[in-house]
Amino acid sequence: MLGSHFVSNCMRAVDLIRKKRDSGEHSREEIGYLVSAYTKGDIPDYQMAAWLMAVWIRGLSPAETAALTEAMLHSGEVVDHSYLPMKKVDKHSTGGVGDNTSLILAPVVAAGGLAVPMISGRGLGHTGGTLDKLEAIPGFNTSLSLADFRRVLKECGMGLIGQTAEIAPADKKIYALRDATSTVENIGLICASIMSKKLAEGIDALVLDVKTGSGAFMSKEEDAVRLAEVMVDTARRTGKKSVALLTDMGQPLGRMAGHSNEVIEAIDVLKGKGPEDLRELSVELSAWMFFLGERTKSVEEGRRLAEEMIASGKALDRFRQCIHLQDGNERIIDDTSLLPLAKSQSHVTSAKSGFITATRCRDFGVALALLEGGRSKKEDRIDHGVGLEFHKRIGDRVQAGEKLVTIQYNSETKLGEAKNLVAAAFEIGDVAPPMPPLISRIIGG
Amino acid sequence: MLGSHFVSNCMRAVDLIRKKRDSGEHSREEIGYLVSAYTKGDIPDYQMAAWLMAVWIRGLSPAETAALTEAMLHSGEVVDHSYLPMKKVDKHSTGGVGDNTSLILAPVVAAGGLAVPMISGRGLGHTGGTLDKLEAIPGFNTSLSLADFRRVLKECGMGLIGQTAEIAPADKKIYALRDATSTVENIGLICASIMSKKLAEGIDALVLDVKTGSGAFMSKEEDAVRLAEVMVDTARRTGKKSVALLTDMGQPLGRMAGHSNEVIEAIDVLKGKGPEDLRELSVELSAWMFFLGERTKSVEEGRRLAEEMIASGKALDRFRQCIHLQDGNERIIDDTSLLPLAKSQSHVTSAKSGFITATRCRDFGVALALLEGGRSKKEDRIDHGVGLEFHKRIGDRVQAGEKLVTIQYNSETKLGEAKNLVAAAFEIGDVAPPMPPLISRIIGG
Repeated sequence: MLGSHFVSNCMRAVDLIRKKRDSGEHSREEIGYLVSAYTKGDIPDYQMAAWLMAVWIRGLSPAETAALTEAMLHSGEVVDHSYLPMKKVDKHSTGGVGDNTSLILAPVVAAGGLAVPMISGRGLGHTGGTLDKLEAIPGFNTSLSLADFRRVLKECGMGLIGQTAEIAPADKKIYALRDATSTVENIGLICASIMSKKLAEGIDALVLDVKTGSGAFMSKEEDAVRLAEVMVDTARRTGKKSVALLTDMGQPLGRMAGHSNEVIEAIDVLKGKGPEDLRELSVELSAWMFFLGERTKSVEEGRRLAEEMIASGKALDRFRQCIHLQDGNERIIDDTSLLPLAKSQSHVTSAKSGFITATRCRDFGVALALLEGGRSKKEDRIDHGVGLEFHKRIGDRVQAGEKLVTIQYNSETKLGEAKNLVAAAFEIGDVAPPMPPLISRIIGG
Repeated sequence: MLGSHFVSNCMRAVDLIRKKRDSGEHSREEIGYLVSAYTKGDIPDYQMAAWLMAVWIRGLSPAETAALTEAMLHSGEVVDHSYLPMKKVDKHSTGGVGDNTSLILAPVVAAGGLAVPMISGRGLGHTGGTLDKLEAIPGFNTSLSLADFRRVLKECGMGLIGQTAEIAPADKKIYALRDATSTVENIGLICASIMSKKLAEGIDALVLDVKTGSGAFMSKEEDAVRLAEVMVDTARRTGKKSVALLTDMGQPLGRMAGHSNEVIEAIDVLKGKGPEDLRELSVELSAWMFFLGERTKSVEEGRRLAEEMIASGKALDRFRQCIHLQDGNERIIDDTSLLPLAKSQSHVTSAKSGFITATRCRDFGVALALLEGGRSKKEDRIDHGVGLEFHKRIGDRVQAGEKLVTIQYNSETKLGEAKNLVAAAFEIGDVAPPMPPLISRIIGG
């Protein structure tokens, strides 16, 4: 085109958009330019939007994904935890319904001797967020300054805060644009968004819990596997140890969904009780964190250490200490009625007899959001007290009229809609289904 | 997604972007909403940019293209020429180098009894624009008010003005965004941009000159054919008669390129002289305008009428009258030295002997722009006097050292670069090539 005769060699957004539009592969420098110029405001939203759509359709190579992750990571501050003598590890979940393993594994791993400097997000859509769950605890402050965060980490080996303005500002800006331009669900972009924030935490190793099934963002297993592979690859390209566990989100994890509910269930597990699936997954993720953080020589040894931290009560003590250090009321550990709880209950019963063969798990999250226990928009406020308690799981036999779910609610406005959604989310058949494995694949590691 | 449970049925840009991203086909209403909301500023640039990229990659169906054309057409005023008793016809060319048929056929067709209310554009990149060529004529006013335009049309049956702010404002806004987001070269978008403006002229029939070859925007014949088909289809869906001629732009049309040069050559043709190819194409396009405008019963009869308008001098008189009515100095018809002309000349000679087998025609336009006889950016000023005169055409035998092109220039700054480009644009071989047909296909009609 004419431009090439008139314009010098400096990079231009319009040419980079064209390159991706035509399925080209960007160099590291090109991606770096796009991210830094966009973050500074030198590239306008409309050019970035066109590029994002070209990326959504044409895709990003593993090298491009790693370059994008690094560029976004270096758009802000990379936290330095070198004052901590032990290895720093974290876990990230791609999100689902009732997924509260962070509240369990962070104290387990900290009690076991590694540091967990966890920076978490909020829930959106049908999924919950760790920050929101923590904020169900009266007084709990998720907005610590980095100085206070370091102090908490130094004292108890764990800390749980939200995204700060200093960390990966490019991600914040790009994510908002993706949200408005239907360019969210792309594996390279998802990977860069997750990994840029996690790698900015200053960790040595990252365990990824990639959900698959009807309650996951990536409901197709092949997509989840690809995302897992790309994230593990990106972590390695940036010099971090990483593993991804592909885990089932074809039904809620544990028996509870909702913010206070999930805090209660996490405490149950830390007390050596709680539902089997939640306990198993938390131990498994902790085990990988111990292994990648070089605290144990094997995953098996990590598993034993995790069990020990729970059985000895050390993990629970660590959680109590962390809540206290982050200004929360740690007495909730002994008296969960101090948590905000819903005033009313209603039951969803089964219309017929048979076996539960599957659930539309996403709809449980949607129903929770209808009851104001989730967000449809970022600005929405959350009612931490509302929740769902699941009485039946896939494979269970159920009689017509038997309780499937107890709904804990405060407002009746959308109760009917929520109940219908929950009732319709169960598939009931005549034959017991094969049980889905909780952990179906391990990628990397 | 969650949104569907919370948001009412009104259209949202983000959903329409997603639909096109996923290769869906928009309804007429959806396209109408996008165009009108974007034109009003209710949809931001970044959402439109993402949609345009999705359209660029996924494409628009014929029905979507027609809906987009109509929505853009109705974003502004549709000119009413019902005060004129005769049919209104126009021609549009997709652009090339040395393509000045508009200056010939408008007076020919007006002299033959139809009205030609031509609204033209400016040149950009390697192609020239009719408006710029007209402005080489001292005093010629291309910015008439619509009232003055009507007066001129009433008096001489033709008028030549530029795009007004009232006509298809959506196109102006969308085109600027496409230019900045590498979403220009898409057949549906090109069609809608051209046709929305042309159909807003209030014409009954439109003849399309779709260029193909190395100097055309659509250099591949298959793309040019598709564009021609889509434009003819769109014209018909909106109730207008239309035909497309697929014509050769593998070398410049006529012997001259440059603004004053092309005015001179057009006058030559109107005087019954001038180069054969330019004359033939102008007569052919005029013939189709006569036929579609129901002035003649056949294209053949239209051809004879066009020849007659030239031979009788009636077309030349009509051009003279139009120049006068639009405040130009009509004495240029008898004394072309009144046009701005370049001060200096330089020759490009052949490095070897043989036959000219092909040209990189686009590079002639680029060379002209380097000499300031074209624009690389919309804001660039044009030197109307600079130009190229071609001494050899495809199929001609040439001796080493013989003149290929005379360059008429004012500034030496980029003369060397322009000469190199021109010299390298000729392919010379040992065997005479087959002659490309000037008109290779007729589509519609």
